[in-house]
Formats: sequence, structure tokens, C-alpha cells
Amino acid sequence: MQKSASSSSFGPGGLDIAQSFFKPIQKTSPPSPTKRHTKISVIGAGNVGMAITQTVLTQGLADELALVDANPDKPRGEMLDLQHAAAFLPRTTILASVDYSVTSGSDLCIVTAGARQNPGESRLNLLQRNVALYEKIVPQIVKYSPETILMIVSNPVDVLTYIAWKLSGFPSNRVIGSGTNLDSSRFRFLIADHLDVNAQDVQAYIVGEHGDSSVALWSSISVGGVPVLSFLERQQIVYEKETLEKIHKQVVESAYEVISLKGYTSWAIGYSVASLARAILRGQRSIHPVSVLAKGFYDIGGDVFLSLPAQLGRSGVLGVANVHLTDEEAQKLRDSAKTILEVQSKLGI
Amino acid sequence: MQKSASSSSFGPGGLDIAQSFFKPIQKTSPPSPTKRHTKISVIGAGNVGMAITQTVLTQGLADELALVDANPDKPRGEMLDLQHAAAFLPRTTILASVDYSVTSGSDLCIVTAGARQNPGESRLNLLQRNVALYEKIVPQIVKYSPETILMIVSNPVDVLTYIAWKLSGFPSNRVIGSGTNLDSSRFRFLIADHLDVNAQDVQAYIVGEHGDSSVALWSSISVGGVPVLSFLERQQIVYEKETLEKIHKQVVESAYEVISLKGYTSWAIGYSVASLARAILRGQRSIHPVSVLAKGFYDIGGDVFLSLPAQLGRSGVLGVANVHLTDEEAQKLRDSAKTILEVQSKLGI
Amino acid sequence: MQKSASSSSFGPGGLDIAQSFFKPIQKTSPPSPTKRHTKISVIGAGNVGMAITQTVLTQGLADELALVDANPDKPRGEMLDLQHAAAFLPRTTILASVDYSVTSGSDLCIVTAGARQNPGESRLNLLQRNVALYEKIVPQIVKYSPETILMIVSNPVDVLTYIAWKLSGFPSNRVIGSGTNLDSSRFRFLIADHLDVNAQDVQAYIVGEHGDSSVALWSSISVGGVPVLSFLERQQIVYEKETLEKIHKQVVESAYEVISLKGYTSWAIGYSVASLARAILRGQRSIHPVSVLAKGFYDIGGDVFLSLPAQLGRSGVLGVANVHLTDEEAQKLRDSAKTILEVQSKLGI
Amino acid sequence: MQKSASSSSFGPGGLDIAQSFFKPIQKTSPPSPTKRHTKISVIGAGNVGMAITQTVLTQGLADELALVDANPDKPRGEMLDLQHAAAFLPRTTILASVDYSVTSGSDLCIVTAGARQNPGESRLNLLQRNVALYEKIVPQIVKYSPETILMIVSNPVDVLTYIAWKLSGFPSNRVIGSGTNLDSSRFRFLIADHLDVNAQDVQAYIVGEHGDSSVALWSSISVGGVPVLSFLERQQIVYEKETLEKIHKQVVESAYEVISLKGYTSWAIGYSVASLARAILRGQRSIHPVSVLAKGFYDIGGDVFLSLPAQLGRSGVLGVANVHLTDEEAQKLRDSAKTILEVQSKLGI
Repeated sequence: MQKSASSSSFGPGGLDIAQSFFKPIQKTSPPSPTKRHTKISVIGAGNVGMAITQTVLTQGLADELALVDANPDKPRGEMLDLQHAAAFLPRTTILASVDYSVTSGSDLCIVTAGARQNPGESRLNLLQRNVALYEKIVPQIVKYSPETILMIVSNPVDVLTYIAWKLSGFPSNRVIGSGTNLDSSRFRFLIADHLDVNAQDVQAYIVGEHGDSSVALWSSISVGGVPVLSFLERQQIVYEKETLEKIHKQVVESAYEVISLKGYTSWAIGYSVASLARAILRGQRSIHPVSVLAKGFYDIGGDVFLSLPAQLGRSGVLGVANVHLTDEEAQKLRDSAKTILEVQSKLGI
Repeated sequence: MQKSASSSSFGPGGLDIAQSFFKPIQKTSPPSPTKRHTKISVIGAGNVGMAITQTVLTQGLADELALVDANPDKPRGEMLDLQHAAAFLPRTTILASVDYSVTSGSDLCIVTAGARQNPGESRLNLLQRNVALYEKIVPQIVKYSPETILMIVSNPVDVLTYIAWKLSGFPSNRVIGSGTNLDSSRFRFLIADHLDVNAQDVQAYIVGEHGDSSVALWSSISVGGVPVLSFLERQQIVYEKETLEKIHKQVVESAYEVISLKGYTSWAIGYSVASLARAILRGQRSIHPVSVLAKGFYDIGGDVFLSLPAQLGRSGVLGVANVHLTDEEAQKLRDSAKTILEVQSKLGI
Repeated sequence: MQKSASSSSFGPGGLDIAQSFFKPIQKTSPPSPTKRHTKISVIGAGNVGMAITQTVLTQGLADELALVDANPDKPRGEMLDLQHAAAFLPRTTILASVDYSVTSGSDLCIVTAGARQNPGESRLNLLQRNVALYEKIVPQIVKYSPETILMIVSNPVDVLTYIAWKLSGFPSNRVIGSGTNLDSSRFRFLIADHLDVNAQDVQAYIVGEHGDSSVALWSSISVGGVPVLSFLERQQIVYEKETLEKIHKQVVESAYEVISLKGYTSWAIGYSVASLARAILRGQRSIHPVSVLAKGFYDIGGDVFLSLPAQLGRSGVLGVANVHLTDEEAQKLRDSAKTILEVQSKLGI
Repeated sequence: MQKSASSSSFGPGGLDIAQSFFKPIQKTSPPSPTKRHTKISVIGAGNVGMAITQTVLTQGLADELALVDANPDKPRGEMLDLQHAAAFLPRTTILASVDYSVTSGSDLCIVTAGARQNPGESRLNLLQRNVALYEKIVPQIVKYSPETILMIVSNPVDVLTYIAWKLSGFPSNRVIGSGTNLDSSRFRFLIADHLDVNAQDVQAYIVGEHGDSSVALWSSISVGGVPVLSFLERQQIVYEKETLEKIHKQVVESAYEVISLKGYTSWAIGYSVASLARAILRGQRSIHPVSVLAKGFYDIGGDVFLSLPAQLGRSGVLGVANVHLTDEEAQKLRDSAKTILEVQSKLGI
């Protein structure tokens, strides 16, 4: 465990400045063991993991941050780089290691680690390698932080959130996938950009499976409190389904576009996951489209995780907003659920 | 110029939702041309440029951010990735291009672009290639933003700040190198870490040339308002020069350490430059060790840029704090100045 | 004009530390006169004015803040009290005076000054006294800040915003009343509190006349993107109009309740107006229910200001969201407009 | 206990929207009882208490805030006024009551309640009335929050911090007086204003007894890391003791000046105490001049609280910085200690 970059000493020999600089006051007592701080661990120090870590650090969401990666050099380099900014940030203890003991006592563990697709590798094979990876990661997290909330970011996020849930043995409210939270924020940006309004004034959900078969909830879109669909109808603006689908298509494609241009995505997922971390750790009771155990919603049958508008708070998922879906939207969700369940059945978990 | 990721349209044909969603009020007048917003441009969309951009965006320091890079794909990918987070951030217009016209009207231009050392290339040759690069960059910046402040981050920062100053024809208060601001924050972290205090409570400057020959101002170190050197003397803690030099050496080496571990440095320089941007654009009149025209200070003779504790505000450098240096410290500064001047004379600028 | 609390001097005689502490660098030039900072003036240093001022200061929205009050002692005391917190805040120049010259060059002037009702005084008489007060205030603001945006907070806010508009001769986009922005936030809190969700996830507008005859837009309410009315219908929850009206009634009464309990309202109006100031000065293009020239909307005929969901940005009101009102809601607006126009006609302006 | 302003209901009868709006997910488990949030209680809802409460709320320092006051109307009015701003703030539960049960489980209790001086009343008599008040307040706090940290703000702060310590039976690290933290920030502002620098760049301590006999530590003053006294000596600026004392005098008088102008002080003490709350609750390990058990420092003999530069963290006072005082400064502290001890002996505690 690398506590810090420093092993320097001001004074020589046994006489150390650190011991003489501060003097204790009298009649004190040691801190109560029930005093707790807030701790976040990030597993995987790649571009996504680091964008999340930096944003969480900037926002002062944790008193202690631990980075774990299979490669010892990468997280240590990142830890040093972040520590060097200490004078610009609220004080946060930053740890880095290959050993999960640094994650001990985390309130939130964010898993971004994942295998990369080899040339010619099937998606199922890739997934099996990721499952093998999670079989190493999740028990270690559980061992050191049995009370933690698990936030899964690695892809395919819905299946891996299910895997993490099974491997952890946690109640379902404590296992959350970042899901379509990012898709929804891309959706909100595209609509806001088109109307030249602030994206924070745009409400719009993409739910279901993260990725190509996600479902845009057209009826949920409102701008500054004005529902867009009924506005269009009332203004007798011809509602062309293809046009709306084009925007959704753009959302789906935008991840691929960013990857083709810069090689990976990082900033938006960083801000997106940090906003989920804030909702959870600061008990915000706010609503976010994230991957939760969807069984029982919209007649979904099996143990499958899909993104739905969930209320998040200190104990994780507090509930799911009872959003109305059209028959077509609900059917898409059930189709996704079926596909995912089939994949899961092949994984033997 | 890529204004945005979106060219989508809700409504078909000529009837567009954007035009009907908002209606103008009566008896208005167009905005006054003197109404200005705050604009920052970042030249170079590499790891350093992007860490700066993301931190500046998070802190809401600019109403408009422009990214310029020689490669068209990289900044466009970064722009999209940042735009996708719009729902989590204060509204900022983000532009990206290979064309400097996107930087038009900037208040602050931050140059992070730089050539990389080829195997076997001499430092002088590398510098000459960087000068050639700056000969392309700086006139373009000046053309589009004649009133901007220039912040140079590329290395070797002191020489390149001089080059930028000469090429721009700007008054010296408007050309600033990020200099030893980062070195000083590393120094503050190492001291804070050793004493287990908040790095924001540690005052400590590294001045002079950014890099191996920087000068640690031991007499400037204070912790929570307690000057450390006189504390050590008073406590009769034997003051061993070697020990102190070891900490300084650690600062110098820490950049190399981060690079050897993660391949580059990014986060700390990002926070560091963002803090300079805030000081300037929000008129903070705060003091930072940055590279300024050092002529006339400590008997430095020529037109050379070195880091000194400078007060920064809306017009750039407001002045330099009249810090006392020991003879040895002042001599080191003059030696650095001499070395830099020799290099500059070989560049033919 | 009281620039600051300090006229002290470290050094005696003519030799002043301030002049020797910083030394200028060479080859500088004076700052360009086009460099502008952001300035907010608050007229009226009572509880409302000060809650606004403190919140604006905390959020770092201005580089310069000016307080004007008819009583010279009050704003000077408030200025000193705020200045004493300088070490905890971004640097902001704070001015205070009875003389409007301190407001010179403001980007935003917030008027909170207002006469108090005398026992037995009619509302019309009180209003006439407030008009007389505005006849003194507004020309002074215009004289020193001809490009400013005017934000009217004094009550009755809709009439006084009209008065300020007429007295200023400003285009209508630069004269805004704080209107029902606060009523709407109270509405959002009451709904959020009832559902145990985050108030930021609740969208709900109260529009029209600020006060007893305001109009709650039931169809605009959504929680986490779920429109509440259609949710209730779909869930076959009997929609009882009286129940909804009870919540609206609670909003209307809550101002009176706070006043009866603590003597005045301050905090919520402070945060509310600061959020409007941010939208304007940081060009957020966000949507807020504020009092704007309502002529032409919903068949409103005369020059009357009423709250509608307006998009705010650097030039003030950018437009009004084309919200659908039921016939009953639109009629209420027209009734309010008629009442206000009658009052305005009696004022002889 | 007033949980909220709302008892409204959307739906009639037993069918409530709140129960149907969110649906639980399956296979959850209730939150662990060890999950804790952060809670701050403020005792006394006057101007000082409310400025602290509002600043703490703005900064999102607590998940739950409780206000207690002897008058039931005042804190309820303040609670409602703050709740009405919920849409502009991070979600925080706000409670108000005359009953201390609302403070249950606080991490930090801030006591601002205090008796006011009656005309002709002796200071000792006033103090005895305050002691009587604390005899009611402190046991109630301890009863409901046995692990809390106590922050005393009422005046005379040093004696009342001692009283609170004795009444609570707490270890000394958990009883802190706001002491000269505000005096020091006034000192920093006055120096910064004189030099036209950012007050955050000025380090300067006032220690000892809060009020007229406080001690300015001249040797601790540095600006941007430059120690001021040695700077003056080196620049051969004649150091006139009277001039420096004049600044200190201005600090002492500034509280009286604010009170004479606006009737009370509020904003600066609000920001000042909020910064202490942040240091403690976020474990900042930062250094602040606050009133701590001073026994054993500078040969102070008895159980007396005086302000010294203390490092604050999650368990309260972590230690006191070993600042060098001149013989004269140390003697002043001992004189203050003696005076306070005499007063304490008369109180019979």
C-alpha cells in the first residue's frame, strides 16, 4: 500500500519536525471508533476510471479515494499526479495499489476494469473473459467492504451488473450499473443544442439496455417544463417519427464517434458517474436512469438488470419511478431482457 | 468551425421546433456590442491541454472554450466528449477546429502544443522545432485575439514564453509561463504530507527556471503561518541542508517519476493552470510563482523569463513580490538566466 | 464613496509598504480599456437586499458589488461585515454608499428598496409612495449604468417592474421582475417534500401575478421527468381539483406564514434572485418564471408585466417559452393583466 | 418536531401519490444501521445562528440541519424560509424546534444562544445569566448527541467554552470556541486591503482572548509567502510599533463599528464558523486560531480556554501549532489567562 509519495524527513536522526511542530492539548480522548469518513474506491485506472476519480476528487465527494489496478505502475503514477494538486483541492487521502486492502471500508466501489476485445474475438468470448475478471475483482471488494455500494461501469454494463450482483451476494439495492445515465445526458445535450437552451433545463430519458438497443422515452421529453411531444401536436408541427429516431440514433452513434475520433470516451462518463456518486453518498434522493434489477417492471420476468429511472440515496436504489411506457417501448424492454437473459444463461452463473 | 455535434432537426421541412418553442417579447432591442463574455482557448488537445480544459470547464471559468489542434479528429472527439456532459455543468459553448478562427476574441490563450523529442535529437534541435511551431501558432493567436493574455505551458517553458513574447509583440504583462507554479504545488504537497497537514496551509515557493535548476526558497516556507526555518532553529532541531535539498530533489524528480509510471503528467498541471486562469480572469490579485520577464530583478540583465512570485489579475502580471533571496539563491537565478540567454541567442530570434 | 474599511498604513511617513512590496515588471502596457469585469449593484440594504448580496458574493458572481441605501449607516455596516469575510471568499470589491455613483458601470442592478405599509394606508397609496421612490432610484441607476439589466424585487413586483421599465426607457428585454420565481420554488419544495424526492427533480411553474392571484400550471408539473397529471390519470388516482388547489394555496400562504413567524422573508428570495443573476451574467440560456412584458401572449393586450417562463441570458430576456395554458389559466392571466392595467392607469405614468 | 412545512396530499382518501409514484425493486435489504449521514445542529436562531446555518447549508456541509431556539416561532420561520430554497441547493433535511430531540445524533453542535446585556447590568451578572443558560443547553445537547463536537460562539467565548467543557464532561478536543478565528480574518482583510492583494494570500494570526485583549502575532504575518516584518527590516522601512498596533486596534474596534452601523454582526461570523465546520466535518487537518484548552502552553497554568493556532479534523482539536511568541506576547496570554481564571472562580463551576 502506497500511502504517499513522500518518505522525506526535515530533521535528521530521530528528531523529527512532524513530532515537534504540533503539540497535543491536555485532557483529550481518542476519537470514537464510530466516527466514519466517506471512502470511494475505483477499480481500473484507465481513462474512464481516472476521469471518474478526478471528477470525484474535484467535487470533494470523498475523504479517502483508493485506486486499484492490475498494473502497479499506472495507479501509482495517477495517485502521484493527483496528489501533486493537493494545494488546489479539498484534502483527500489518495491510495493506490494492486492489492484490494487499500479499498477497505469503502462506501462506494466503482468498477471500470474490463477486458478489451481481441481481433476476431466473439462478443460472448469477450464477455466470458470479463466474467472471469469480475470473479477476481468482486469477492475482493466484498471481503474488504461488505457494506459498500457497487457501481458497475464496465461494458456490457447490464450483464456485468448482474454478474457483480450474483458474485457479491449483495441485496439488489446495493448493486447499480451506470447504464443509460450517460446516454440520457447525451440525449439532453443534443436536444438542448438544437433548441439553444441550457441542457439542465431538458428532461429526457433513455432507458433499457445500454447501447444499440436502448429505448428513448419520447413522451418523457420536456424543455423548461414544457412537454415537447404535446407541444408539437398542439402547434400542429407534423410529428415525424423518423426525425425523432434520428436523434436517438445520433445518441447511440455518438459513443462510437467519440471513440473513432479520440480513441476512447472519458470526460462525459466521468461527470456522469460522479453525479451518481454524489446522489448516493450525499443522500440526494434524486432520479437517474441507471441499471437496476428490473424484474417485475413492465412484465419483465427474470433476474435481469436494465436501466430505469431510479431514485438514488444513501442505501443505493430507493425505488423506480413508475413511468408510463407505450406498448412498443415496453415490448422493446422485454426484448432486451430476453436477449440478456439468454446471454446470462450461457455464462453459467 | 465545428459549432456543435448536432445537425439534427425535430420538425421536418422548414417548420422547426426551435423557432416556435420560444417567442420573443415585444419592445426589445438587440444586445449591446459591448456586452462581452469570457473566452478561453487551449492550443494543443493532448493530455495536458485536455486536463486544463476539463478543469477550466468544471470550474465554470469561461462562457466559451475553443480547442485548436493540428490534428482535426482529436479536438473534435474531445469537444464531443465534453459536450455530452452538458447536463452536469454550467453552460459553456465549446468549439474545436484546426483553424484559429475559433479562438477569435479570447481573453486567455493557453498554449500546450509542443514537439516531442525524437530519439537521439539534441535539446537545441528540439527547441528549434518548437520555435518553428510557435512561429505558426503565436501569430494566429494574435491575429484573432489581439487583446488576449498568453499563458505558455509547453516546455522548455521559460524559453518558449520568451519566444511567445517576441513573436506576439505583446507587452510583457500579457505573456506568462506556467513556470514553477506546479513545482511549488508539488513542494507544498510533499511538506504537507510529511507533517500531515493540509497542503493549503503550507506556503512554499520554488522559483527560477522550471525544471532541474529550479530554486527552492527555503526561507519562504511556512506552515499554518509558522515560518519553518526559524522554527527549526528555535527548537534547536539541527538544520541539515542535505535533508532539505533532498525534498527539493524529490520535487524535481517527481515529474520524471509520474512520466515513468503513467507515461505523462496531466491532472496536477491541469489544476495548476486552471488556478492561474481563475486568478487572471476573475481578477483575484493573488500571488503565484510563474514565468515573467525577469529583467531587472536580482540583477538579472537580459530579456529572460523566469518564475518569480507574481501578482496576477485581469491585465495579467500586476507586479512581482519583492522576496528576499540569499546571495546563493540570487546567484542561481542569475546562472539560470545566463544559460537561458545563451540558448536564446542561438535561436536567432 | 467608501472604498474600504481601511485607511491604515504599515509604514510611517511617505514610505509605504504597499509601494515597495510589489515591483513592476518591465515593458508592460496599461490594461486595455475594453477589459471589463462583472458588476452587480443592489439597491436597498434591508433583509432581502442583504440575503441577495450575500448569496451573490458566496457564489462569486461578481467582481464588484455595490450597495446603495437611503440610510448611510446600514450599507456601510453590511459592507464591513462582508469584507471581514474576505479570507473565506473569492476576491470581490465591495462598495457602499447613499450615492449612486458607486453603481457606475453595473451589469445588473437589483432593486429591493420599497416603502412599508403604514397602518391604515390603502394599497394604492402605498404603491404611489413606491412609485415616488422609484422616480428617484431608477433615473440614478440609468445615469450611471445605461447598459445595465434591471432586476426588480420590490413589491408589488409586476407593477413596479412596469414602472421601472417606463422610467428607465430601457428595451423590455433589460427589465425583469423576480416575479413568481420564488413562488415556483416554494411549489417545487412542497411537491418534493410530499413525495420525498429532491426538489431539483421537480418541475413546476407558478406564473402570472406574483401574490394571491398567481396561477399554478398543473399540466407543467413533472417529477424526475414523469408528468404528474397524466400519471395520476393513468394510475386511476382520482384527481381532485381541491387537493391540488390546496397546495397552491399553501404556496401563496407560505410567504405570509414566514413573515408571521420570523418577521420577514429573506433566505429563499436571496437564493432565488441569485439564481436569476447567474442565469443572466453567465449567459445560461435557462428558463425561469419571471415578470416580463407580457403583451401579446395569451391575448394580453396592454403594456403589463406578468411572470411567464422566460429564457434568460446575457442580454436579459431572450424569449418566452410557448407553454400551453388551459382556457381557464389563460383567462386568469388576462384578468390579472386587466387588474394591473387599471392600477397602472391610476398612477399616471 | 416540525419535519416539514407540508402536510398536503395530492390524492384524496387513502390512495396517495407518494406511495404509487415509486415502486420498490426486488431482493433489496434495509440499509445498514452503520450508514451515517452528517448532522449539524445550531442552538440559537438569531442573526449569528442564522448566518452560520445559511452558509453551512449553501456549502452542503450537512445532510441534516437542526435549529433549536427558546422561541418556537423564530426557528420555524427560518426553517420554512430555508426550505423554500430547496430547488437551488443540495438536498438537506432541515428541522426546527424548541425541543432538543431534533438535534439527536449531531456530529457538530454550534451554540450561538446568549443572554443580552440589560441596561446597567454588570459583565459578571450577564455572564452568570449566560452560565445559567448554558446549564440548560449543554446537558440537553450531550443527552441527544454524546459523541458530538461542541462549537461555542456565544460571548464571552473563552469563558463560555470552558463552561461548556465542564458541563459536557467531554474530552477537551471536542469542545472548541470560535475564538479569534474571526478577528484573524478581519486582520487579514485589513492587511490585504492595504496592500491591494487577495486576503487569502495573507497569513496573520490574532490569538489569546477574543475581544479587547487579543494578541496580534506580528511575526506570523506573511503576504504571498513573504514574511512582512523581516521584509520591512530588510527594506529599511522604519518599523513603527504604533502603526502596527493601530491596525490591531482597528480589528478590535471593527466589531463595535459594525454593531454601531447595522446593529449586530452576522455575515463574517457565519462564513468564519462555516469554515471551522468544514475543517472538522471534512477532516481537513487545517490550522485555525480557535479557543482550546490552553493549559500547558506558554506556561499557562489553569484550566482556561484561549485561542491558539489549532489543527482541526474529524475528532476536533488535533493539536496546537508550536508558534514562537515573544516574551511580551506570551506574557499577554498569561495575563489574559489569569483574568479569565479569576472570572471563572467567581462563577462557582
